[in-house]
Amino acid sequence: MRERLAGRLVRTPLVESATLSRRLGRPVYLKLENLQHTGSFKSRPALASVLALAPELRARGIVTSSSGNFASGAAWAAREEGVPATVVVMPSAEPFKVEKARRYGAQIVVCEDDYADRQRRVDALVAETGAGEIHPHSSAPTLAGDATVGDEILEDMPDCAAILIPVSGGGLFGGVMESLEVHGHGAAVYGAQPEGNRIFADSLRAGERLTGPPAQTLADGLTATRPGPQGFAVAQRRAAGIAVVPEAEIGPAMRLLAEEEGLVIEPSCAVAVAAALQGTGREDTGPLVIVITGGNIDPERHRRLCSGDAPARP
Amino acid sequence: MRERLAGRLVRTPLVESATLSRRLGRPVYLKLENLQHTGSFKSRPALASVLALAPELRARGIVTSSSGNFASGAAWAAREEGVPATVVVMPSAEPFKVEKARRYGAQIVVCEDDYADRQRRVDALVAETGAGEIHPHSSAPTLAGDATVGDEILEDMPDCAAILIPVSGGGLFGGVMESLEVHGHGAAVYGAQPEGNRIFADSLRAGERLTGPPAQTLADGLTATRPGPQGFAVAQRRAAGIAVVPEAEIGPAMRLLAEEEGLVIEPSCAVAVAAALQGTGREDTGPLVIVITGGNIDPERHRRLCSGDAPARP
Repeated sequence: MRERLAGRLVRTPLVESATLSRRLGRPVYLKLENLQHTGSFKSRPALASVLALAPELRARGIVTSSSGNFASGAAWAAREEGVPATVVVMPSAEPFKVEKARRYGAQIVVCEDDYADRQRRVDALVAETGAGEIHPHSSAPTLAGDATVGDEILEDMPDCAAILIPVSGGGLFGGVMESLEVHGHGAAVYGAQPEGNRIFADSLRAGERLTGPPAQTLADGLTATRPGPQGFAVAQRRAAGIAVVPEAEIGPAMRLLAEEEGLVIEPSCAVAVAAALQGTGREDTGPLVIVITGGNIDPERHRRLCSGDAPARP
Repeated sequence: MRERLAGRLVRTPLVESATLSRRLGRPVYLKLENLQHTGSFKSRPALASVLALAPELRARGIVTSSSGNFASGAAWAAREEGVPATVVVMPSAEPFKVEKARRYGAQIVVCEDDYADRQRRVDALVAETGAGEIHPHSSAPTLAGDATVGDEILEDMPDCAAILIPVSGGGLFGGVMESLEVHGHGAAVYGAQPEGNRIFADSLRAGERLTGPPAQTLADGLTATRPGPQGFAVAQRRAAGIAVVPEAEIGPAMRLLAEEEGLVIEPSCAVAVAAALQGTGREDTGPLVIVITGGNIDPERHRRLCSGDAPARP
């Protein structure tokens, strides 16, 4: 799969953050997936998923569901392959992200604000059209696409000591850890979740995949209420831990990166930056890599979160 | 000089902008100096200038003047060398940038809103303290520092066809062209100025360095009212041209990069992005590099410019 993806994705840079290195007293690097196609890492698993479909299925297009970035990623990947995309979104999805998916050519279907209804609509669309279904975070191809983030980090920084990743369903988290396993690399991998949706952290502690209450978080990309089976299995054997970050720390982390690094980051990856500032992973003293998963946010919402105008909870 | 700078600056990445490549129908790459120390390329000429001072002068600290980014760059470079920095700024300097210089440890002296008074204050401080003066854009060391941007672009992209650079006094513009001359590289180099301060473009057309009226532009980093002699000399023999961009195009270019690439860019480099969108350099069909000179802007001002709330003139 890696060979099929090469050259079709942006090989995103890994750059030192002078500010975070100073603040944390160790070299801190950012993996800039805000510079990926569609502005988030989700274009990787989306393209991997579209390419993994049987050709006769793919020819009829793809159907998927998403809280946001995977919608644009899937729309872009389908357009790359010249097939139609339909994305089922809940009314609570970020309008900025839905609009972006539409601009990449996706047909948008709005379901009830409920994961079960969302899946029913996907099933119905698949039955109607014969299109291929792709899943935002829990399938072998999504993890293979996500793993390319880990491959690139190790290529650019063979001596990286720790990697910090925002966690929702666990696709990226699991994919990066699978990459480390394939390379036999010993870096510690930490997850970060917001206080308003900590179900992956709680599940790891419980030793089983729990289902949480609906997410109540500013991190609109971290809303999965149950860990995906693939990511969870890898995390159980390989994760160094998951930090849970107060909602009130998200805005200040966004502000820090806007003011000091000139980066617009989404609340979802601000959770990982905030976790680093809280001290997550400080037991490893070598280079720390934080995955900046995306930069898709409405400028007005970005300003509100940076300035602290926003409520602590959405 | 290049050897003395290596390892002390961020080796900033050159990344493709999928959005601009699609819009312009050619590969477009961004040189991300927003990721440089202090958030702008100015840390390069500042460090070069501090290192070029005679040791006994440097030991007494540095004095400089700046409309913004060079102030932080100089403060950072002085702190790197363990010496004090004093920066003379006009009251019209961007408060966000002045505050940043203060955080890097500079003492700030506010002069009259007038270039002549600014230079008088610098001269007086130099006479009082015996510190070394460094100049924001017109000296051999500043051009040598600026030239490292060109060196890195050519290293990363030997087949680059054109480079587009925002122009004020012409330090970066001249430095990059000097780098191309040293490497015997034939890429076309275009400048971009805002409508509200087009004196470098007018000077090139006139064949001599003119002095313009006070700048009336949103691009707070492009306010020099007379080309520097070094940059102007290189531009006369080597520049492919200078585009002049309407003030009203600055905000939309900032918005495009925030929404599509997750980058906070200053109005000054938005001028270069806007020039590319206007078609500057379209006669060369190979890869185009735009230098994203900095990301230092107050989040509230960024939002206003992105949303079109700001007046066309400051």
